[in-house]
Amino acid sequence: MNIISKIKKYICDNRLLSQGDVVIVGVSGGADSVALLHILHSLQYEFGLQLYVAHFNHQLRRGSNTDEKFVKKLAQQLHLPCITESWAQGSSQSKGSLEELAREARIQFFMKMAKSHKANIIALAHNKNDLAETVLMRIVRGTGLQGMRSILPKRLIQKCNFIRPLLETPREEIENYLHKHKQSWRNDPSNQQTKFFRNRIRLELLPLLTKDYNQNITDILSNLSKNISVDYDFLEQKGCELFKKMAIIDKNKKNIKFSLQKYTTHHPALKRLLIRQTFQYLKGNTKRFTFSHYEEIEDLIENRPNGSVVDLPQGIQSKKYNKYINFYQK
Amino acid sequence: MNIISKIKKYICDNRLLSQGDVVIVGVSGGADSVALLHILHSLQYEFGLQLYVAHFNHQLRRGSNTDEKFVKKLAQQLHLPCITESWAQGSSQSKGSLEELAREARIQFFMKMAKSHKANIIALAHNKNDLAETVLMRIVRGTGLQGMRSILPKRLIQKCNFIRPLLETPREEIENYLHKHKQSWRNDPSNQQTKFFRNRIRLELLPLLTKDYNQNITDILSNLSKNISVDYDFLEQKGCELFKKMAIIDKNKKNIKFSLQKYTTHHPALKRLLIRQTFQYLKGNTKRFTFSHYEEIEDLIENRPNGSVVDLPQGIQSKKYNKYINFYQK
Repeated sequence: MNIISKIKKYICDNRLLSQGDVVIVGVSGGADSVALLHILHSLQYEFGLQLYVAHFNHQLRRGSNTDEKFVKKLAQQLHLPCITESWAQGSSQSKGSLEELAREARIQFFMKMAKSHKANIIALAHNKNDLAETVLMRIVRGTGLQGMRSILPKRLIQKCNFIRPLLETPREEIENYLHKHKQSWRNDPSNQQTKFFRNRIRLELLPLLTKDYNQNITDILSNLSKNISVDYDFLEQKGCELFKKMAIIDKNKKNIKFSLQKYTTHHPALKRLLIRQTFQYLKGNTKRFTFSHYEEIEDLIENRPNGSVVDLPQGIQSKKYNKYINFYQK
Repeated sequence: MNIISKIKKYICDNRLLSQGDVVIVGVSGGADSVALLHILHSLQYEFGLQLYVAHFNHQLRRGSNTDEKFVKKLAQQLHLPCITESWAQGSSQSKGSLEELAREARIQFFMKMAKSHKANIIALAHNKNDLAETVLMRIVRGTGLQGMRSILPKRLIQKCNFIRPLLETPREEIENYLHKHKQSWRNDPSNQQTKFFRNRIRLELLPLLTKDYNQNITDILSNLSKNISVDYDFLEQKGCELFKKMAIIDKNKKNIKFSLQKYTTHHPALKRLLIRQTFQYLKGNTKRFTFSHYEEIEDLIENRPNGSVVDLPQGIQSKKYNKYINFYQK
């Protein structure tokens, strides 16, 4: 099976695209996104797609503007509309590493573009190697089931469908495809800098594991992530069901409480999922919530006196009060 | 908290021992098992334990007999009965690597000893580093959730409770404890041979990860395994419940079938757990059953004609027939 047939199969198996979809394709100018654009372009009539090329210029290094020009020219050659934006870094108020900020700004740009062009899909070019590298990075840094799912083929963020059609395609196949079609791409030299943790995982740890421990490590990690996604999906579903059944939400939607009597009857895995669901409800994400927080909540419930409070990430507090356990923004 | 208090807490938190337990302690003569014996000996009156020292002489290398003598002498010093057995390797009929065979024979010996001495507990000396090393080894070789649980603090095998009281104690603390008590131990030189995959993980990969990627990697892997154990326990429980509800078992207990109509309504994670449960019922284990087998069963159900058969590990076959999916020994 050639690369296009494989990706078409992956798109169909995972229901990534439907007839008539309007798609924002994120194109940095690197091999992966150039190949993604090419492939979606070659499928556009078959799937009845309307494509937009979107490029976010991070302005973080020399060559940024050349990348932008490269992408614009590519879009022109394919007769596709191209939308670009430069990053006004200073305007960002949130905290975090530059890498994280850049990622966040890029995603916001894609979502804004989706809205203004009435697109229902944002296609990104993560490949199988990115997936394996993310799983490994998270394992080494510390993660749970949710994190080990790594990159998902399809994810809904604020009513935008992010899809990743290349997620089962190895980087090598992507580059071979481009070579075969005599299509050039731009290399990002920062991908080679081993000062970044992710780059060290990709450039040093994964090659070492492949050479000395298991030559199939990329497949192994990608399968692990796929398997865990299936299991986590079921667990999350159970957590959601229980949340709907048990959560007592105040009218401002700022305070959620559970009856302690009911809470304690559930399996520890379900209790943890319930608390994650509570975070998801209050904050829209579960960032920085770890197993140790869950253990503290358990300790609060079992051992501490009425009225005790536990501080949780993102300014959330948990309070044991009368016959309830409460969660609210501090 | 000193090492004995910590281990006592671990034993209580995980309900590893009860008053009056009769315990077979597996003692190879290595640091871990010598420390385990010492610690259980120091807790024996408090917990009302009756202890037996059990040593399995694998006869695989020079020094085996010296190890046996060392353990016998140690038992004598502690005034504990000591049971030993030498491995009649030739009598084993099963296949597998020598390492696997030796492990199997050792476990059989412990279970036989438990039976003949009316012991309800077999205590083994795996420590936190063994746990981390096993998780990492399985990740690198390829595994799913079940395998990532790695080594469990308590496991029931054929009515014998295997417990591992040192599972949260790092190797270093164990050796420090022995040094402090001027207690010697025997080193197994084969633990240093990097021709064994596990030894390379322990002696090369884990130290590299600690040094260059995350100095807490042992804790990280041990926590990952603990978290996953909680989630898997819940999943397994759901799988069991569904099996009891859905399985149609013939009177010889050799053929299990499910209504296809009912089977297909369930979440993919549950379907997979159901099939694992079926294996567990037919074979007593789920060895070599992987995600790809599950995918083949799915393909059988969805795409292949009535009467089609799929070969699964351990001589199990699956057949789609009329409105059922069957599982039976070939």
